[in-house]
Amino acid sequence: MFVIATYDINRKRVTKVMKVCRKYLCHIQRSVFEGVITDKMFRMLQGEIAGIIQEHEDHVIFYTLRSENYVDKIEAGEADLSSASLFM
Amino acid sequence: MFVIATYDINRKRVTKVMKVCRKYLCHIQRSVFEGVITDKMFRMLQGEIAGIIQEHEDHVIFYTLRSENYVDKIEAGEADLSSASLFM
Repeated sequence: MFVIATYDINRKRVTKVMKVCRKYLCHIQRSVFEGVITDKMFRMLQGEIAGIIQEHEDHVIFYTLRSENYVDKIEAGEADLSSASLFM
Repeated sequence: MFVIATYDINRKRVTKVMKVCRKYLCHIQRSVFEGVITDKMFRMLQGEIAGIIQEHEDHVIFYTLRSENYVDKIEAGEADLSSASLFM
């Protein structure tokens, strides 16, 4: 399956969430990960994230597709700002 | 078409980019918008964004699908942090 994960996470927990996401997906923007993983890996990812986040302070969205073929990805600009503090 | 737009934008331009995105899509996370729009509206959105961003300082991704039916959206946590400065 193809997964796009986006999040708004309280600073206290964002490093933990990023560390978990990196185990399963590729870091493509500051708060966006994507990748092709198995259903089992996706359940593991969800489980690990659920163990970290706080219901009322954090928000994670997983967009899942059966295949990458259903989605087109169009990019504008080429900056790699995934770790820059000046940007949002 | 269904569009998910995510961005890392230099602070100098982020307000302008958000304003444009709001014209076409729904703001669902701090740097994520989504919505169902026509092909023509998508081209207008792309054009407006291209007129704002700086190639080497900004990065926008548009994920596009023919239909929402191809994607599942699973959410964890319920915080609405789209405008909170404490979060990333």
